Amino acid sequence: MAQPIFRRVGLLGVGHIGSSLARALRQHGLAAHIAGHARTQATRDKAVALGLVDSMHEGPAELARGCDLVVICTPVGSYAEIAAAIAPALSAGAIVSDVGSVKQAVVRDVGPHIPDGVHFVPGHPVAGTEHSGPDSGFAELFVGRWCILTPPPGTDAEAVDRLAALWTRCGSQVEIMEPAHHDAVLAITSHLPHLIAYTIVGTVTDLEGVTQKEVIKFSASGFRDFTRIAASDPVMWRDIFLNNREAVLEMLGRFTEDLTALQRAIRWGEGDKLEELFTRTRAIRRGIIDAKQA
Amino acid sequence: MAQPIFRRVGLLGVGHIGSSLARALRQHGLAAHIAGHARTQATRDKAVALGLVDSMHEGPAELARGCDLVVICTPVGSYAEIAAAIAPALSAGAIVSDVGSVKQAVVRDVGPHIPDGVHFVPGHPVAGTEHSGPDSGFAELFVGRWCILTPPPGTDAEAVDRLAALWTRCGSQVEIMEPAHHDAVLAITSHLPHLIAYTIVGTVTDLEGVTQKEVIKFSASGFRDFTRIAASDPVMWRDIFLNNREAVLEMLGRFTEDLTALQRAIRWGEGDKLEELFTRTRAIRRGIIDAKQA
Repeated sequence: MAQPIFRRVGLLGVGHIGSSLARALRQHGLAAHIAGHARTQATRDKAVALGLVDSMHEGPAELARGCDLVVICTPVGSYAEIAAAIAPALSAGAIVSDVGSVKQAVVRDVGPHIPDGVHFVPGHPVAGTEHSGPDSGFAELFVGRWCILTPPPGTDAEAVDRLAALWTRCGSQVEIMEPAHHDAVLAITSHLPHLIAYTIVGTVTDLEGVTQKEVIKFSASGFRDFTRIAASDPVMWRDIFLNNREAVLEMLGRFTEDLTALQRAIRWGEGDKLEELFTRTRAIRRGIIDAKQA
Repeated sequence: MAQPIFRRVGLLGVGHIGSSLARALRQHGLAAHIAGHARTQATRDKAVALGLVDSMHEGPAELARGCDLVVICTPVGSYAEIAAAIAPALSAGAIVSDVGSVKQAVVRDVGPHIPDGVHFVPGHPVAGTEHSGPDSGFAELFVGRWCILTPPPGTDAEAVDRLAALWTRCGSQVEIMEPAHHDAVLAITSHLPHLIAYTIVGTVTDLEGVTQKEVIKFSASGFRDFTRIAASDPVMWRDIFLNNREAVLEMLGRFTEDLTALQRAIRWGEGDKLEELFTRTRAIRRGIIDAKQA
């Protein structure tokens, strides 16, 4: 077994991502001790029963005490409260990170609570499935995926390197980014696709003339591809949209313009415009296959 | 080998669906002879080299001569011309069908050309991948999928039964529908999803600030799911939108309303509305999994 990178890792939240991280830490021997916290007794019991952690703690502060790495793995709407709770318990030299899908809001909500001498390195493993809860995690979730770190200016380089080493040993490639740029990139690659998927699946639940049963029956013709991501965790996604509002609305505006142009092309029978777009979009798929992200 | 259902099946077009059908007919011994036609010499050569057909024909009329089943497997925009070409060559008692993703336009474009004594049974196997061309087909494409038939009122029941038997023996379940209802169901389950996927992938090709390379890199976070269907055949899809205009515009209108409502909820920070929708959409995914269409 390789040398652990951290002596004691505290996971605040052991849902899909938190429990996957616990499993990956265990599998690769990256933490000498894994401490866990979950908001509800049921989740705490489940995580203990699954053997995900070495110790389970009822409160965030109790969890954070003595850790050299604390990772927040809860919906981003809960971060401010959690940061305030753990602040007094953090040890000098500890690293505080997270796995949230937005990063400017994390800097805004968590940053001010971080005591002097504690390193704050926000993170986002760009990985996940539509499943949620401690049962749904698996150690291989991060293999071949990217993990984005957005350390504030002046962050201790060694702390960033240690956290990067953790994600690398979980199988990820690490990229350092500005929080605002992260939020723009994720708005188009993740947040807008989820918003659109949620919308069309919602549209289907409100139709007259075509029944929900028929939609399900014939879903293999395209609709199915949208339902996977529209089955993602509702609270997590509510918090993402509320906390990346500007970037999401900006990308949504561009999408809506393009959709309106296409709507007009259909109405006026402009086949050449349709064919031109449909030909152009094929190349992107090839790029994703070539980048091994398909 | 079971008894063939048809003596001589003529396939007009041997692309993704046509070549899959050829392979399925062969695998299950459903046709004593498979005749093929393709518009270009290159495709005809390819189909012959792949051993897809027993005979290859340069013209549609030549293909149709002597067949007891002719299946049109070309983009729907070509149907009127093809129907006019094959009409004089059709034998009494023959069945003319197709595999197109719209059905009212097929009735409109092909119906008037069908001679007395020939049976016209439009069909739509609800199956396919994002790939195209004779190489991309496979015999199992139709297994577990639905095939919708839309025979006009008064169509010979025996002809419908024979065609239904063919699809059933290819592994499909057969459903009979009105053409207008088919077009409404497919507008929401297939055409709108493709339109949206093409649009967002197009939006990505036009961004400032976020590069195409970054989108590809981080596509596993949601965008990826849209690119598969946005890689579908451009001409086939151009023709689908031009030939199911009303139903697509109607569904698109509903989708846009719902998207605008969600946009407003994000702008005004209405988390409860977001969470309610995101919870509701999970149920549809479960329905698709239960119906074994996931």
